[in-house]
Amino acid sequence: MEIPIVRNILEANEAEAERLRENFARTGILVLNLISGPGAGKTTLLEKTLAALPRELRTAVIEGDQQTDHDARRIAATGARCVQINTGAGCHLNSSMVAAACEYLDLSAVDALFIENVGNMVCPVGFNLGEDAKIALLSVAEGDDKPAKYPSLFQCARAMLLTKIDLLPHVDFDQAKALASAKVLNADLAVFSVSCRDGYGLEPWIDWIVGQWRAKRAALADRGEKHV
Amino acid sequence: MEIPIVRNILEANEAEAERLRENFARTGILVLNLISGPGAGKTTLLEKTLAALPRELRTAVIEGDQQTDHDARRIAATGARCVQINTGAGCHLNSSMVAAACEYLDLSAVDALFIENVGNMVCPVGFNLGEDAKIALLSVAEGDDKPAKYPSLFQCARAMLLTKIDLLPHVDFDQAKALASAKVLNADLAVFSVSCRDGYGLEPWIDWIVGQWRAKRAALADRGEKHV
Repeated sequence: MEIPIVRNILEANEAEAERLRENFARTGILVLNLISGPGAGKTTLLEKTLAALPRELRTAVIEGDQQTDHDARRIAATGARCVQINTGAGCHLNSSMVAAACEYLDLSAVDALFIENVGNMVCPVGFNLGEDAKIALLSVAEGDDKPAKYPSLFQCARAMLLTKIDLLPHVDFDQAKALASAKVLNADLAVFSVSCRDGYGLEPWIDWIVGQWRAKRAALADRGEKHV
Repeated sequence: MEIPIVRNILEANEAEAERLRENFARTGILVLNLISGPGAGKTTLLEKTLAALPRELRTAVIEGDQQTDHDARRIAATGARCVQINTGAGCHLNSSMVAAACEYLDLSAVDALFIENVGNMVCPVGFNLGEDAKIALLSVAEGDDKPAKYPSLFQCARAMLLTKIDLLPHVDFDQAKALASAKVLNADLAVFSVSCRDGYGLEPWIDWIVGQWRAKRAALADRGEKHV
């Protein structure tokens, strides 16, 4: 009984995600879907990222949490447009939630949209949101065994950020082991080691985002379409 | 469509959980269901707990992960009986999985059964496993805002362990704030601050487990039933 039902939910999600993807392609908006367990540092990374991106790149954020608007307030304080989705009992964002949130954002004035998913390493993975890339975050406090134990996230992510790298002297975390096990799952994974506390490693991550955005704009130009 | 289907899954889970609960009550086995995000330190806490419990208390462990038997190997190295459940794409353990795992454990020689759920702060909460208590773990590296943002776990847990307390000097974590927001959700929550690195705070936690076990045995004696 369960499997076909889950498939129907996923199929409905895919249909809406496809509409979102077409809209984001037509308008040249880069969309990144940030996924991790709770407390890996998604909001803090976003705060630092929004501040460091070049000004020409106009940003917006969709925040997903079970409860509270804490994260949206933190993001709004950076000056970025932000919408908070509270999922209640829900364990992931889906494409309908993102479509509804987009109604509150003036997407004609947005170049890059960041979606911070619910803190959960498992369930958000199966729900496409029309994004260009899923971004996996793993805090070094969580342990180097996580890619092997929760492989689906690392298999489908385009980039992985090892966060809270400043804690390395205080935890048992073997960076080489974590990277090797992630690369076995996904040879093309881009990897960044960052500390939002001291700013270590943020520059290559910012450059990567800008590169992704330029590539999307170039693809749009190739299609001979205008940015609406 | 979705809501009644989810209810059916939960109802089926409750029926099997009730059978487990009756069996654990009849045999006087204390069952604790450990829930947290990935990397909060459930396995390390179990390693230290199994080593520190009085010998008269015979233990067994059921380990849940999406993939690998890493955790079961770590637990087996302590000498405790252990069964690993791999959930594949699944984001939580359910009562049928626990019933199947119990077939591999000689429960007549077990006093306390620890169930380490899949690393996920959201989904495991809705699935009873016949346990006496859900135990929430929150690493101080995850942030003091987690009880407010993911309230359902802290509402239904009997105890909360703040783990990796040795990292406090290196992270922005306000213990008083985390405790206050958890207590607002659940005034009866027992709280323990622990570090498995240096053993800080483990003794009250061990005493709490022994107390829970003695209470369960006393209840069994009151019922005039024999331990089978």
